[in-house]
Amino acid sequence: MTTAEIITQIQKKKSFLCIGLDVDLTKIPSFLLEKEDPIFEFNKAIIDATHHLCVAYKPNTAFYEAYGIKGWQSLEKTIKYINQNHPEIFTIADAKRGDIGNTSTMYAKAFFEDLAFDSVTVAPYMGKDSVEPFLAFESKHTILLALTSNQGAFDFQTKQVDHQELYKQVLETSKDWTNSKNLMYVVGATKAEYLVDIRKIIPDSFLLVPGVGAQGGNLQEVCKYGMNDQVGLLINSSRGIIYASKKSDFAEAAAGKALELQKQMAEILS
Amino acid sequence: MTTAEIITQIQKKKSFLCIGLDVDLTKIPSFLLEKEDPIFEFNKAIIDATHHLCVAYKPNTAFYEAYGIKGWQSLEKTIKYINQNHPEIFTIADAKRGDIGNTSTMYAKAFFEDLAFDSVTVAPYMGKDSVEPFLAFESKHTILLALTSNQGAFDFQTKQVDHQELYKQVLETSKDWTNSKNLMYVVGATKAEYLVDIRKIIPDSFLLVPGVGAQGGNLQEVCKYGMNDQVGLLINSSRGIIYASKKSDFAEAAAGKALELQKQMAEILS
Repeated sequence: MTTAEIITQIQKKKSFLCIGLDVDLTKIPSFLLEKEDPIFEFNKAIIDATHHLCVAYKPNTAFYEAYGIKGWQSLEKTIKYINQNHPEIFTIADAKRGDIGNTSTMYAKAFFEDLAFDSVTVAPYMGKDSVEPFLAFESKHTILLALTSNQGAFDFQTKQVDHQELYKQVLETSKDWTNSKNLMYVVGATKAEYLVDIRKIIPDSFLLVPGVGAQGGNLQEVCKYGMNDQVGLLINSSRGIIYASKKSDFAEAAAGKALELQKQMAEILS
Repeated sequence: MTTAEIITQIQKKKSFLCIGLDVDLTKIPSFLLEKEDPIFEFNKAIIDATHHLCVAYKPNTAFYEAYGIKGWQSLEKTIKYINQNHPEIFTIADAKRGDIGNTSTMYAKAFFEDLAFDSVTVAPYMGKDSVEPFLAFESKHTILLALTSNQGAFDFQTKQVDHQELYKQVLETSKDWTNSKNLMYVVGATKAEYLVDIRKIIPDSFLLVPGVGAQGGNLQEVCKYGMNDQVGLLINSSRGIIYASKKSDFAEAAAGKALELQKQMAEILS
């Protein structure tokens, strides 16, 4: 999927919402546990109820790997279901991968070819030759961790490196990598004011912003500092949407929470 | 597996060799491709031929994920085969994971509980609360990326942060994390002289050293600068051992390469 196609969808749906499909079996309605594939049944219901309100879905691979082969099957069924029924949706494998060159190519094949995701999140610690193998895939996007939304972000990411914070160094350096046009960045919403400086370094790139809702980020603040003239933002909410209810109305309740965010986004876009 | 048990195995086998099971279907003997599970058949033959020469096996998850569910099944069969037939072997899931707290717990469950690995490699970029969920597992080891063996290591890892290189900052900071006794570190063998400084920061920790062989690292150099009085080293070789031959003698050829390294190690240990 091209960036232009993402922008078209944002304008059409008046939404730049990404829904995180982080399915924890201890948190979903208990009646689903009797189904053959509870994770997929949960995702399918959430997708059916919310696909018109969001432009992206983001399964975090940890929640699938934790259930072994069954979990990996649920992930495969979920991405196939989205690609077949809602091909306009931008799909993100939140996998935070990264390894030496030939190994990163294997990860890229896993997510871009085998699972047919549009994008994957990647960690920057191992540098250029760990990220460029992902960037080599045409019409696929690599979403590089810059500033994450957890407390541990202050351990290294905000430390001064050559007179600027490490996460800024990551942004600057990555601009020179081959096919850097295929880069997007993860920027946590808990530090909206940082977005001013970030936009000075990467004015045009799309940012994936987690941490709105459950992690305390504020939508208006993020848009005020982070939006560019092509929107340039994908705002993720996971727990705040998908666990809105533990009863049989869980999908409608999720749609209700997604609609609240979509309405705020429509207002911001107008 | 406890660190004491690893050291006992090293003394018994006179070896601190780790064999990387990074199975690429384009590189294994072609007659194996006719088998139902070529990856597992390849691994099984390598393990049968080399288990007495090494103390650890390290499958890199990228090479399994690239083949989707079939790949994940091969990984599961491989780790089960090792645990059942050679329980004295230390197993490393080279997965380079790391995410916000509750998500890292899911990854830890995937590798420590579902797959029953003894250890997993983890990336440090997201800081303390992305690593501590792994450290919380008793008798399991978390192998933190410090200085990797690829060219991209110079993009961020060797940059000055608060008057020392980032990888040293990672070593220093991680010592204060809860259950840091369960930490080991990845240190690339291409920069053996760095080990002097590294040992000043973490004199007692085990180091997993990739990059001996295919990536150009030198065993004697690494031991000279990196060994401590409890050995403290696991030296990994992947391609240099497992792809020693593409013919029907591939397992014996791999054992031959492993024996060369084991003999050098026995000499160093004596």
